[in-house]
Amino acid sequence: MALLVQKFGGTSVADADRIRAVAEQVARRRRQGDQIVLVVSAMGKETDDLLRIAAEVAGEPSGREMDMLVTAGERKAVALVAMAIEGFGVPAQSFTGSQAGFLTDGTHRNARILEVGAERIRAAIDSGSVPVVAGAQGVSAEKDVTFLGRGGSDTTAVALAEALGADACELYTDVSGVFTTDPRVVSTARRMHSITFDEMLEMAAAGCPKPAMRSVEFAHRHGVRLHVRSAFTWEPGTWVVEEGPDMEAALIRSVVADLSEAKVTVAGVPDRPGVAAQLFRDLATAEVNVDMIVQNVSAAGVTDISFTVPHTDLPTAVSVSEKRIAASGATAVLSDDSIAKVSVIGAGMKSNPGVAATMFEVLARNEINIEMISTSAIRISCVIAEEAADRAVTVLHEAFELDRTTF
Amino acid sequence: MALLVQKFGGTSVADADRIRAVAEQVARRRRQGDQIVLVVSAMGKETDDLLRIAAEVAGEPSGREMDMLVTAGERKAVALVAMAIEGFGVPAQSFTGSQAGFLTDGTHRNARILEVGAERIRAAIDSGSVPVVAGAQGVSAEKDVTFLGRGGSDTTAVALAEALGADACELYTDVSGVFTTDPRVVSTARRMHSITFDEMLEMAAAGCPKPAMRSVEFAHRHGVRLHVRSAFTWEPGTWVVEEGPDMEAALIRSVVADLSEAKVTVAGVPDRPGVAAQLFRDLATAEVNVDMIVQNVSAAGVTDISFTVPHTDLPTAVSVSEKRIAASGATAVLSDDSIAKVSVIGAGMKSNPGVAATMFEVLARNEINIEMISTSAIRISCVIAEEAADRAVTVLHEAFELDRTTF
Repeated sequence: MALLVQKFGGTSVADADRIRAVAEQVARRRRQGDQIVLVVSAMGKETDDLLRIAAEVAGEPSGREMDMLVTAGERKAVALVAMAIEGFGVPAQSFTGSQAGFLTDGTHRNARILEVGAERIRAAIDSGSVPVVAGAQGVSAEKDVTFLGRGGSDTTAVALAEALGADACELYTDVSGVFTTDPRVVSTARRMHSITFDEMLEMAAAGCPKPAMRSVEFAHRHGVRLHVRSAFTWEPGTWVVEEGPDMEAALIRSVVADLSEAKVTVAGVPDRPGVAAQLFRDLATAEVNVDMIVQNVSAAGVTDISFTVPHTDLPTAVSVSEKRIAASGATAVLSDDSIAKVSVIGAGMKSNPGVAATMFEVLARNEINIEMISTSAIRISCVIAEEAADRAVTVLHEAFELDRTTF
Repeated sequence: MALLVQKFGGTSVADADRIRAVAEQVARRRRQGDQIVLVVSAMGKETDDLLRIAAEVAGEPSGREMDMLVTAGERKAVALVAMAIEGFGVPAQSFTGSQAGFLTDGTHRNARILEVGAERIRAAIDSGSVPVVAGAQGVSAEKDVTFLGRGGSDTTAVALAEALGADACELYTDVSGVFTTDPRVVSTARRMHSITFDEMLEMAAAGCPKPAMRSVEFAHRHGVRLHVRSAFTWEPGTWVVEEGPDMEAALIRSVVADLSEAKVTVAGVPDRPGVAAQLFRDLATAEVNVDMIVQNVSAAGVTDISFTVPHTDLPTAVSVSEKRIAASGATAVLSDDSIAKVSVIGAGMKSNPGVAATMFEVLARNEINIEMISTSAIRISCVIAEEAADRAVTVLHEAFELDRTTF
């Protein structure tokens, strides 16, 4: 008999049919002898709808009121899921974040969990009931409702799994696991049976949207076993695990493309200490989210600095940079909104220095120009033209034999 | 400087424009020096929408889960109203029923308030903030979310006004007060400046839908001054008050028609003790909500029993009655779905026995047949044919000179 925390995202509970499918699965798992705790997000696009009406009602609502508002979505979802489970003859009880014992700090919109006092959830399990916990919410020491932010339901699930000493935390999504690359782009993409925490974090950082990075970090830190799987096909998905001895067999485990960023180049920057620092201090003050930074080798006392930012931050980044060049004596600010960041990720590359060379060769052979490069211990990312993204992913996936490897 | 509890129903906060109108009014009243506490219902038809999806998800959801579900509607509304008030530059804070200190019993769907520990609301007022409290909700001793039932927001407002020692409780609706009769039916209907608690209760019992009877009873018991008024025109409405010395000047203060009921007649009932008792015990067991009961004078050892029930209860009432006639030897069960109950109400009739006679004469003169009669100390109700309802209301309103009286 296993104790499992299962998290269902918005698309998994988007309507009455989906909610009944989740409830039926719970009933089945219970018959098989497992103890189940659910964590549920707001239905479908409900959170977006709530944000839209808030914008209609008030220009800049306070964090406290936004949190009271958006957490109503999860509250509705947990009640509906609990009654659906009862409809299958299994006792169930819904809990708000506060009722489930999630004590957080008072940082509204993006609260941090301080403590999970899971006594009520434990008591519900012991009484034979299925607890259904509202994701991404808690209560502050001031007894105000708090929201953990987008993707916070993953964090709720992982924290609850840790507090309960659960055997595993299953994150149900609309895909059936973690793939070697996007199966919509490359038909030979393969689902991985397992992936390391570090690889999962690099994939999240590289633009792979699920699961939320914060929850993976938390699971990594507390040794919670994560299982990313589908609420549509219900087949076994991908386990996220500590690195094992056999993990380095494959050099590369996935290829990820991220189209969410734009590139800014500040050209002709005087090559003296502090100029770059001032630029990035200005960008930070303006809350521009800078990702990659590349500074070209200096020639003749001037240098070019390029960096990437989310599309939405591009206008601010450009205007901040233009103000700065006036002060620093740089010559121009150029921007490119049509780029892609293509990354290859794998714990195996740590002990194999040839991966970067292979990646660059493969791109060059396919006449894909590399504009920027950045690396970590287990990831290499290249910025290329947006229109070459699908082609780059396809040729890299094949070159690293991901279509022929069993993970 | 007055301390006012203002309650806004669903139509008053149905969309972003309405919410901003409520917020603007709060800002205005604050500028005039009043302290304001708001109680808010779920937006528009949201509660109905939640009930509909619950029915899709599960056949007979438990009370606990239904309460968790429906209270999400008020939670969303209070957050939006609070942020709209902040948008007008006035500090505001939303509170769930639990946060506002509403301790209730554990009767889900229809919980009773046990205690209002309004310290947090008092502290918010003292800090210069406008508390916005979710209507119709509380928390049980088991820390479960509870719902006070339909119309429960009125009760929340009155109970909060009592707990805070507020100067008045303003119940905002979509009409501008309590009228001598339905202004849609009789164009000469007049808005009353004040009405007694007893009259208000009789009007509610006679089918006038607002405010909720339970809240009027509570206000009466605890001496809370009620003001029923419009959130659309904002003009002064009708005060609900203790009976004053001048209250008996007018015999009749209002004429109300109720089209929500149907009539059942059990004919040829043997006239012996206990037969009627058995019938109404059966109806109570089947949860049929019986309103008026009339038993005709017995002739030749048999009698007819007529009673009214809500339209929705009619099929059950007929089948229960048919089972009972088989056992009791009655001859037939007749039902009529096209009736109206017309009532005249006024504290003044207590000391004037001629009111009933006048009512019957007026109806007879207008060839409106009376099928059933029931009376209380300050109300006389007649069941007539549904198609005669508007005509009956018009001629009674005129006969009792309500179109010429100032209240």
